[in-house]
Amino acid sequence: MDKTVLHDVSYGLYIVSTNLSGKNVGCVANSFCQITSSDLTVALSLNKNNFTNIAIKKSKKFALSIISEETNPELIKTFGFQSSRDVDKFQNFEFDTIEDLPVVKENTTGCMICEVFNIVDTGTHDIFLAHVTDAERFNSITPMTYSYYHKVVKGKTSKNAPTYVEEEVSATDSKKYRCLLCGYIYDDAKESIPFAELPDDWQCPICGATKSFFKEI
Amino acid sequence: MDKTVLHDVSYGLYIVSTNLSGKNVGCVANSFCQITSSDLTVALSLNKNNFTNIAIKKSKKFALSIISEETNPELIKTFGFQSSRDVDKFQNFEFDTIEDLPVVKENTTGCMICEVFNIVDTGTHDIFLAHVTDAERFNSITPMTYSYYHKVVKGKTSKNAPTYVEEEVSATDSKKYRCLLCGYIYDDAKESIPFAELPDDWQCPICGATKSFFKEI
Repeated sequence: MDKTVLHDVSYGLYIVSTNLSGKNVGCVANSFCQITSSDLTVALSLNKNNFTNIAIKKSKKFALSIISEETNPELIKTFGFQSSRDVDKFQNFEFDTIEDLPVVKENTTGCMICEVFNIVDTGTHDIFLAHVTDAERFNSITPMTYSYYHKVVKGKTSKNAPTYVEEEVSATDSKKYRCLLCGYIYDDAKESIPFAELPDDWQCPICGATKSFFKEI
Repeated sequence: MDKTVLHDVSYGLYIVSTNLSGKNVGCVANSFCQITSSDLTVALSLNKNNFTNIAIKKSKKFALSIISEETNPELIKTFGFQSSRDVDKFQNFEFDTIEDLPVVKENTTGCMICEVFNIVDTGTHDIFLAHVTDAERFNSITPMTYSYYHKVVKGKTSKNAPTYVEEEVSATDSKKYRCLLCGYIYDDAKESIPFAELPDDWQCPICGATKSFFKEI
């Protein structure tokens, strides 16, 4: 089985956010799609270890902002590199509060307010099925795709990014793997276990992405 | 509520296919995403009226081929414009048979074989949750996104397409709406009911897309 085929599946990039007992929480997500139209419903998949998943299970609603191609990479870094358990991710970004939910407006093309009506347990992840109860457009900038983020944004930002040198192919035998979602580098030379020998359920320590989202660099 | 925000959600384009009692059936789909990685699972949403949906419910498995940017528009026209009830969509395209499933190889970057383990009824559509049991890469061409298909392929093909003139904005008061998925034009001047007054559960007569996938032209 050639699992790299899974990398050819196209996604957008989104900020998913909710409010848990007065605390604003959120993360970056990509597995999101519209399911029905007459009754406007959507599906969102989130890892169970993700704090935002835990919060949505309690709040039963979330906001989803669509990241644009012109986004400041700091937005993805902030929402994808950290856990809302530890930091207030919203403190440096413009956001509104709609129906008690924090909605990121900066760097995004629009948002939806979603009320969860079903949660499907799929093992490591939950699929949240939700009604879209409101939607607002902020601008008409082209939405960011996962592919664009990987190919273009990385290129634009790499000069100032700490990973820039690390992205070059090493002349040594040790291998490096980059998380396509958050940019985290797994360097075999610095780890006790080579990437290839990590268990299948291993996850990116920064954003929680699974092994299939890592690419050798 | 500004429903156009839903158009900013990014998708790929896929041929979903199965075999029903010896008959090869398939269609174009876009609502597809990976759900989990350690146990490789995916989710696919298909309209209940879609013949391929009915067939997958019986066969409990499907193949999914990823349409590439270099696809022949005839592929999308063939699989998106007709029903497998009426025609053999596979007759003019190269395909393999893997585990009894017809797998479109022409114009696609790779395929997955998927075994359904759960079906979630969401009203007009079903979400098929499936294990990926095999995957094969055919080439490394860039996968087609829904946005690319709409913006670029339509441009490339419109000169020879019957819809080319119809795509121009009419000088009259009557409005036209194009299905972003299959290209079908709904022309208010030729219909008894203006598009805006069609019920929310109305569907594209060609590909089954819902009203939200139509854009005024």
